[in-house]
Amino acid sequence: MTAPHLPQPTTDLPAEFAFIRRHFLPLAGSAALNLGDDAAVFSPPQGREMVMAVDAMVENVHFLPTDPPDTIGRKLLRCNLSDLAAMGSMPEGWLLAFARPPHITESWVEQFCLGLAQDQAHFGLSLMGGDTTSTSGPLVLSLTIVGSVCPGQAIRRCGACAGDGLWVSGTIGDGALGLRVLQGVERLADPTGHLAQRYRLPQPRVGLPLYGLASAAMDVSDGLVQDAGHLARENALHVRIEANNIPLSAAARSLGRSWQETCLTGGDDYEILFAVPPEREQQLSLHPSLPTPYGHVPVTRIGQFEAGPPGVSVMDGNGSLMQFRTNGWSHL
Amino acid sequence: MTAPHLPQPTTDLPAEFAFIRRHFLPLAGSAALNLGDDAAVFSPPQGREMVMAVDAMVENVHFLPTDPPDTIGRKLLRCNLSDLAAMGSMPEGWLLAFARPPHITESWVEQFCLGLAQDQAHFGLSLMGGDTTSTSGPLVLSLTIVGSVCPGQAIRRCGACAGDGLWVSGTIGDGALGLRVLQGVERLADPTGHLAQRYRLPQPRVGLPLYGLASAAMDVSDGLVQDAGHLARENALHVRIEANNIPLSAAARSLGRSWQETCLTGGDDYEILFAVPPEREQQLSLHPSLPTPYGHVPVTRIGQFEAGPPGVSVMDGNGSLMQFRTNGWSHL
Repeated sequence: MTAPHLPQPTTDLPAEFAFIRRHFLPLAGSAALNLGDDAAVFSPPQGREMVMAVDAMVENVHFLPTDPPDTIGRKLLRCNLSDLAAMGSMPEGWLLAFARPPHITESWVEQFCLGLAQDQAHFGLSLMGGDTTSTSGPLVLSLTIVGSVCPGQAIRRCGACAGDGLWVSGTIGDGALGLRVLQGVERLADPTGHLAQRYRLPQPRVGLPLYGLASAAMDVSDGLVQDAGHLARENALHVRIEANNIPLSAAARSLGRSWQETCLTGGDDYEILFAVPPEREQQLSLHPSLPTPYGHVPVTRIGQFEAGPPGVSVMDGNGSLMQFRTNGWSHL
Repeated sequence: MTAPHLPQPTTDLPAEFAFIRRHFLPLAGSAALNLGDDAAVFSPPQGREMVMAVDAMVENVHFLPTDPPDTIGRKLLRCNLSDLAAMGSMPEGWLLAFARPPHITESWVEQFCLGLAQDQAHFGLSLMGGDTTSTSGPLVLSLTIVGSVCPGQAIRRCGACAGDGLWVSGTIGDGALGLRVLQGVERLADPTGHLAQRYRLPQPRVGLPLYGLASAAMDVSDGLVQDAGHLARENALHVRIEANNIPLSAAARSLGRSWQETCLTGGDDYEILFAVPPEREQQLSLHPSLPTPYGHVPVTRIGQFEAGPPGVSVMDGNGSLMQFRTNGWSHL
């Protein structure tokens, strides 16, 4: 049996203390107790429930070593914020596990943390705790997000009924197109940089007022078609989507219909997909936008839930069923 | 720029869904919402504060690919429980990020989860949420633990005064000796398997009644001498430890004094180190054990805090200062 590669012995303060103080202490909020204790202590806002999720990102799987470190940190936080937004909850704090390979430099970590500082200020939360360790493999980042919601007001994936409309926030497909622009493997025009920016920095719909409006919701991260299928199956319903109603940005539209499948199945959208009962749809149809602390977010009706085989159908402008090579992505 | 290795496309339910249902759903408590939503929803016990920590374990750093998978899961959970215990708080739930390399088989994951099922039942908590992803590198496991405590009753690392005694739970050194037994690199006798067992399955001191007794506390994970130094520095005090008073198990004592340094600096103890003001020490000295839901835990006075240069001194039986090659471990 070989010996595990034990951490470096120390006679003075371990190197990790200086590393944590230098980079992560500036991000710490009051719950973090200066990152000097065994755990964070947090008083939940009076009378609210806690909402928690964890998301990991792995180098060469979710990002490239050459990606700007500040956007990697911000994207990780934003993907987690999108999970909170989908539940109709507000952010409170976050914890980070950081498995660091030797090639991740001090300067890389500095940029990574500066990005996080910017975004945590913008979205009103702070670092509660974390753990740093070494690894011989790729960089692995695990972020745990902590939010809160009024009791009973969390929006779940189940709750939709036949007849409810299917709505989505913002625009779909920009992130998936942006990845392909950054890969440089296709001749894709992105003159304004809008698509690449949307891939690197998704806009989580924090504060979208889903309670009292949506009967079910989830965030779109693995492809609109696949995620709509999940939402339908969670409700034992079928959902029928009109492809022509799916909102695309001007940048995505300008690329033409040959990129439509990428938009509908490519993922990395971090928009909110939600079901709205018919009696609440009329007013939303008149003013199809919702207020958030970060401005009004346009919302679009793209389909309808109906009785039928659990799953999703996407119809083209002629009412014909569309077929895709894939509906979305699996992480294993 | 090379393309990231994107996850596998799917036309049906992604493989990760089946993986999560098969292995992790049996661990899920009510907060997890059947692991089918974007986040967990948790009602904090009435009028309590939340306590949270995250710890990551990396293959070949914290464990070996050949270690029994059930004890890897249990050790990960127990290390996190030890952090909660050090704060005087009780466990509520946990979240897991699982970055899985191709060599981790279904059977490995099954054993890993069976170990976690056993321990979460024993310690009274359940899985709240998680994330699985693929990685080309070693297995990386990040566990976020969620606990609670009565407001104001969390025990911190700071709070000790000069004159307070330094106490420790259980025995010190077994874990470090057990690692060396398992490595097989030294001629170390472990006829009962006690040392190896203590390395693989630390006994977190969950429920140790620190409130009203301890003025400061932390858990011993990186070596007693180093961790005592941290506790002293957090209080701007010096702490003087009598090496002969440090409690060793019969198995550790039987190895002789040549292994003393390994015991005092080797780490992997997951015992609780705590400061006790003099007025509370007398009764504890008469009955040096504390009740927990898992039985009485012996506690031992090993030193005293005093004014002086922040840090730690360890004295031998002749009152001479002991020198060590290292005080403990750094994780970077």
